[in-house]
Amino acid sequence: MLMVSEGNPSMVEGDRIQEVLREYLPNHRDIPEKLVEAMSYSLFAGGKRLRPSLVFAGAQAVGVDPDKVRPLAAAVEFVHTYSLIHDDLPALDNDDFRRGKPTCHRVFGEDIAIMAGDALLTEAFSIISRDQECTDLSAHRNLLDAMGQALGARGMVGGQVRDLMASQEFSQEDLEAVHSGKTGALIAFCMSAAAIAFAKPQAVITAIKEFGLEVGLAFQIIDDVIDETGTLEEIGKNPGSDRSGNKLTYTVLMSTTEATELAERTFVSASHQLASVALDPEPLMAVAHLMVHRRA
Amino acid sequence: MLMVSEGNPSMVEGDRIQEVLREYLPNHRDIPEKLVEAMSYSLFAGGKRLRPSLVFAGAQAVGVDPDKVRPLAAAVEFVHTYSLIHDDLPALDNDDFRRGKPTCHRVFGEDIAIMAGDALLTEAFSIISRDQECTDLSAHRNLLDAMGQALGARGMVGGQVRDLMASQEFSQEDLEAVHSGKTGALIAFCMSAAAIAFAKPQAVITAIKEFGLEVGLAFQIIDDVIDETGTLEEIGKNPGSDRSGNKLTYTVLMSTTEATELAERTFVSASHQLASVALDPEPLMAVAHLMVHRRA
Repeated sequence: MLMVSEGNPSMVEGDRIQEVLREYLPNHRDIPEKLVEAMSYSLFAGGKRLRPSLVFAGAQAVGVDPDKVRPLAAAVEFVHTYSLIHDDLPALDNDDFRRGKPTCHRVFGEDIAIMAGDALLTEAFSIISRDQECTDLSAHRNLLDAMGQALGARGMVGGQVRDLMASQEFSQEDLEAVHSGKTGALIAFCMSAAAIAFAKPQAVITAIKEFGLEVGLAFQIIDDVIDETGTLEEIGKNPGSDRSGNKLTYTVLMSTTEATELAERTFVSASHQLASVALDPEPLMAVAHLMVHRRA
Repeated sequence: MLMVSEGNPSMVEGDRIQEVLREYLPNHRDIPEKLVEAMSYSLFAGGKRLRPSLVFAGAQAVGVDPDKVRPLAAAVEFVHTYSLIHDDLPALDNDDFRRGKPTCHRVFGEDIAIMAGDALLTEAFSIISRDQECTDLSAHRNLLDAMGQALGARGMVGGQVRDLMASQEFSQEDLEAVHSGKTGALIAFCMSAAAIAFAKPQAVITAIKEFGLEVGLAFQIIDDVIDETGTLEEIGKNPGSDRSGNKLTYTVLMSTTEATELAERTFVSASHQLASVALDPEPLMAVAHLMVHRRA
């Protein structure tokens, strides 16, 4: 329904997700206005809303009504936004612009940006704790633990630290460890979240997670390719800027053609993960296909 | 048992808490070493371990075996440490030293310090999700939601933002709003966490929370007094440094004698909160007494 609706699916989906985010943005009068402004500025700065789409697709794949994972969809976008705000800080990537708009710390100052990130991360856990329907205590535990693992020292933060500390002599294995933490862990969590919350069989959860990790990797490889081959207009920054900024990228290790082929092989390998378990692969395959075959 | 043991209670308590922290520090081989070093450096930089003590005292007050709240005790110290690391950053309080040791960003760099804080916050939620025994789904939900509220935009982060944005023309009410968020919310959560996790009556939870908020305020007032009256040796920094640093303090609004009296009145008022509910006030009163009648 959500990813495969007729007409303009991405717009229908996008509107729905904007609405979900607005619903869960904290708006209590006890919250300093500036903090809500900074959180809201970055939340509504025009992302692709990929992660909420993955939550909805993951729900459809295992037969859960997408309306039942609205809190999860909001929470993962809160988390993604927190990670962008902190990554953009002067002490990390030092990015002044994101998607053509000044980054959070350029608008609100570094202090407020750090706090806005902290608040978004915290609210994400609150939203799931309070609002996400779960079938039982162990499903609730597993869901929050899986999110913590995806985001913490073994997941997103760990991947970012690996990236910060990487030397210019890196192997493909090092690069996979960076991206599996920075990008893959959250993508795998998004896809498997509904299955965890609604206590689907462990084999189903594991298959979706493995699928998500591989698709996340293919997504990242294509990101590096697009950074080389996209136009300024398509990607909102100068082509080749990641590679010239001394970041670790696949296009340092191989040609863009080889990288595109690697992404394709990774995507095909990922699709096998969904073959032998009891779920409908279509919703996850559809969004994964868009992730790996995009041009910007 | 924990707070009132014979001999040297604070040392017994301190050893026990060190052990709990070591137990929950993530040590998986997938985690970048530098990240664990930074998290561990700040966790073991010699704090008073007040917040874990409050968790244990809160457990005793409502008849819960303190061994059953070890994960909670670890989690709240993780959270407290995260908040110190982020508050010390150059963009916020810009502190080079804490408890006589270089702050996390001075040792590991700002980038790793921001990430270490993010990881500690995330791990705190993971520890509770995974390891904290709860009686049922609704207790587990309430526990994590209460922690989220205490830490998020309405709690600790909100208080910090209020502090950052405060002008020098502030009222006692403004100051209370800052401290109730920055300090009081987490203290109240620590004290009430066992009662929430083990589904004690709502009246008991509310009474402990109100007690914690008032004790937190008295604690902060005394903090400001000690900043004026303590010696360099006692407080590890130059006396009067907070006031001269243009921070909002009670000693700008009133004399140290008046502030001490206000703290005492607040403490007495707090103690009434515990009078009419079914709990043993002694463990909480004992630790609160130490908090408000300390000299450093």
